[in-house]
Amino acid sequence: MSRSGEFDWISQYLAPLAGPNSFALTDDAALLEVPKNQNIVVTQDAIAEGVHFLTDDRLDWVARKALRVNISDIVAKGGRPYAYSMALGVPDQWRDTDMQLFCQGLAEDQRIYDMTLTGGDTYRSPGGLTIAITMFGGVSNNRYKSRHGASAGDILIVSGCIGEAALGLQVATGALKCAEADQRQLLQAYHLPDPPLALAECVAKHATASMDISDGLMGDCRKLCTASSVAAVVDRNAIPLSAPAKRIIEQDEALWKAVLAGGDDYQVLATVAPADVDAFISLACEHDLVATQIGFIDGAESGAVALDIDGVRVSIDAESYSHF
Amino acid sequence: MSRSGEFDWISQYLAPLAGPNSFALTDDAALLEVPKNQNIVVTQDAIAEGVHFLTDDRLDWVARKALRVNISDIVAKGGRPYAYSMALGVPDQWRDTDMQLFCQGLAEDQRIYDMTLTGGDTYRSPGGLTIAITMFGGVSNNRYKSRHGASAGDILIVSGCIGEAALGLQVATGALKCAEADQRQLLQAYHLPDPPLALAECVAKHATASMDISDGLMGDCRKLCTASSVAAVVDRNAIPLSAPAKRIIEQDEALWKAVLAGGDDYQVLATVAPADVDAFISLACEHDLVATQIGFIDGAESGAVALDIDGVRVSIDAESYSHF
Repeated sequence: MSRSGEFDWISQYLAPLAGPNSFALTDDAALLEVPKNQNIVVTQDAIAEGVHFLTDDRLDWVARKALRVNISDIVAKGGRPYAYSMALGVPDQWRDTDMQLFCQGLAEDQRIYDMTLTGGDTYRSPGGLTIAITMFGGVSNNRYKSRHGASAGDILIVSGCIGEAALGLQVATGALKCAEADQRQLLQAYHLPDPPLALAECVAKHATASMDISDGLMGDCRKLCTASSVAAVVDRNAIPLSAPAKRIIEQDEALWKAVLAGGDDYQVLATVAPADVDAFISLACEHDLVATQIGFIDGAESGAVALDIDGVRVSIDAESYSHF
Repeated sequence: MSRSGEFDWISQYLAPLAGPNSFALTDDAALLEVPKNQNIVVTQDAIAEGVHFLTDDRLDWVARKALRVNISDIVAKGGRPYAYSMALGVPDQWRDTDMQLFCQGLAEDQRIYDMTLTGGDTYRSPGGLTIAITMFGGVSNNRYKSRHGASAGDILIVSGCIGEAALGLQVATGALKCAEADQRQLLQAYHLPDPPLALAECVAKHATASMDISDGLMGDCRKLCTASSVAAVVDRNAIPLSAPAKRIIEQDEALWKAVLAGGDDYQVLATVAPADVDAFISLACEHDLVATQIGFIDGAESGAVALDIDGVRVSIDAESYSHF
């Protein structure tokens, strides 16, 4: 097991990932392409060992997770990612094989999501692996969707299934046991989020507001409501669950808490005017994506989110997750 | 001493730093402004506690250093910075007062360099403070200067003084003692680099190749030569030294090593065709900046850098710093 220097790592493992205006990563900076007739969406999310992933997680999956937590932000704004910059804090114990595996993960997702690396920085990180990705996306002019456009009457829609990653984290830490196939699926959801790339088009065309769900469905819904100065009602029975999540919840209702507040979903929460809901869902369907109505926006107190549980509305505030 | 939550910190300390298309940092992403008739230069440099700065360094200066190590990259490409994104890894022991002081530093440099914050991420960093800045600059169309354009006959020019920061680090760690006023000046150079903002115009107009000097003058010169497939001769007597650096070198010739190879200068190394040298230096002078000829490019073996010491040429290779 050997370890090359920083510049060898850059030329050997990172330069092959670079885009055409990045001088094979031999320059101080790069030129950022400006997509034609589009605005540039920029986001930056970092993940750190022991905080966002576990020390023995597969390094190719860690790399892909670092990209995907940013992809979900771009998609939620109605954009398609096309490039990213990476600051990579490398632990002292990393060897060439670690760097190689990590970069294999980057390469795999660059292929899937059609992106290139613009550049960045590698540096010693004695405290553990840290990856800060700045990602660039193109969104049709004036189609960027913030969290600020929801209004009373809009329908709340989520993509994919909710809660799998939060349950997967409990599997990973040993707090949750279930059938082996279910464990595998939940673990995969935790390690490798699956942001709905093609949903960008639905969001750009039809959403009034949109955000990615990374800190838990209910808390993120509250953020969207606060930004838009509206309230929301979420129907718990309508929240899309995967088959393993359904089975687990049936066994232990207390795990609703993980589903509703656990985070790491990296799906999209969008609000859509009632007249556009069918178009949104059909377009998602054409892209083989599932989009589900889970509630609606009303004009009650700004930022208030209520959870409808079998017809009974429970008011949810920031401190109330423990009551789920 | 209290500590607020992540979202309070964002709204209280970071949101006031945000630009107009960043939704007061309440959104998942931001729109990146595209400067009119300019290309976008993007760079990303990270600095970490214990690696790039010391644990008891002033936090406002750490913030400004994080920005300035990126500003020097943009300037060296011929660009002017206008925006940046920041991933901030916050140590567990940080309190509100730490965050406040750090953000005061950001605000001060935003004012000096006329930049705004687009967004980013804050996260727990148990291993110590980590700041990854992605910076955006505008450069006149087709005026981006890479490291690749130097050719035989070009003159090597550096901005500012060389070696102060490397000597300052030795003062900071207690390895170097000198007169108190000199110590103060060297320490300041180490803590708070002073990238020559207005030099961007000289580079864009007159340089054939350019880079920032961050890893030591001789090593960085070699990188430029390698990228351009040329060689260089640097005249040691021509290297611009500040008065404290001069005094120290006179006392101990061995400290040339720190000056030539120490790094952290964050000045610009540019190559300029002989016919344009006067124009480059005059324009720098108009902006109250010092630009100094320190050598020339010749056609010898690609990447070879020789140091001329009182008329004797010493060949410098990657491993030879210890012979300075």
